[in-house]
Amino acid sequence: MKVDEKIWSKRKEEAYMRLKEDLEIGYLDEDIVEVLEEIFKRPQAFTVSSCSGRIVIVDSPYPWERKDSTILFKKHKPISLSEVIDVIKQPAINMMWLVVVGPIIHVSTLSLKEAFRILKIARQAGFKHSGILSATRKGITVELRTGIRLAALLKIKEKLVISYEDLKSIIEISNKALLLGKERLKRLLEALKSVA
Amino acid sequence: MKVDEKIWSKRKEEAYMRLKEDLEIGYLDEDIVEVLEEIFKRPQAFTVSSCSGRIVIVDSPYPWERKDSTILFKKHKPISLSEVIDVIKQPAINMMWLVVVGPIIHVSTLSLKEAFRILKIARQAGFKHSGILSATRKGITVELRTGIRLAALLKIKEKLVISYEDLKSIIEISNKALLLGKERLKRLLEALKSVA
Repeated sequence: MKVDEKIWSKRKEEAYMRLKEDLEIGYLDEDIVEVLEEIFKRPQAFTVSSCSGRIVIVDSPYPWERKDSTILFKKHKPISLSEVIDVIKQPAINMMWLVVVGPIIHVSTLSLKEAFRILKIARQAGFKHSGILSATRKGITVELRTGIRLAALLKIKEKLVISYEDLKSIIEISNKALLLGKERLKRLLEALKSVA
Repeated sequence: MKVDEKIWSKRKEEAYMRLKEDLEIGYLDEDIVEVLEEIFKRPQAFTVSSCSGRIVIVDSPYPWERKDSTILFKKHKPISLSEVIDVIKQPAINMMWLVVVGPIIHVSTLSLKEAFRILKIARQAGFKHSGILSATRKGITVELRTGIRLAALLKIKEKLVISYEDLKSIIEISNKALLLGKERLKRLLEALKSVA
């Protein structure tokens, strides 16, 4: 369970190069960049992967099922009614769900002590579903995650199961949920800075 | 971060007495009892709290929000249309959501090694959102959790936002999701037994 510092440091270097590349390409959501950089500044931590929160429309037997599911739409910003209507015109193979997921960040740490430190900071910033996932020679993996999650059923096969007006409400709520997630990222950034 | 064995052992004893009491009262869901007992058999682990999975109807601004939310209905077994209709007759203060949550078990372990062992077993049994939450002198807390989660919007204030027919579909899917969670519990039980 002891992390190999040499392996871990090499992983951190590589991850940092990927982060810089992603930044240049503009691949990274600006809402999350500062948080990632703040985590990289910590000598015993780096980020492996991240998502600033997203709204997806998925064709799936269940909204949590990756198997047999197809992502029809994905956006990290608030969505509009017309965007959703474009997607729901298509027939669904199984069921069509509108899913909102709050921000998720995977952090690798060199020590368990650092993992628990980050966990504490994250929990205080509203990332209440965070936890340590695994510990190997390559590093301790910590997942930072909020409880923000929403799944609304839009279609069953060809049949729309939501009215036009209710769709508007669902979109409004989804956008609110997404922005709530972005606010948590800001709180996380502030929390990370205040302990630095 | 070292667990105090004396404190921890006392907590395990107390938790075991509570478990026995809950069993006698019939308070515990039979779907989960064997899993809890299997965890208690492990010298370095005990369960703190658990839920075998449930369907709730909640009046809340968001389905994940505990603040300002009222539970109108809760059941650990499949639900019927008439049960739901009884609840949705009432007006909602905010929004009325039908929420399905898969099984959740909180385990306390004496060592990090044991925490990671249980984490590995749980993940293999389909408890993919499991993680170590904290480590104090009182014990290491591990949360075992699946990704099974569903939230369907039923009402906005007084207005029903789902048709009678779609409500039937939602109930069917919710019951399926609940039973899928119970199946994961069985897999967890088998996994715990096979390594014992």
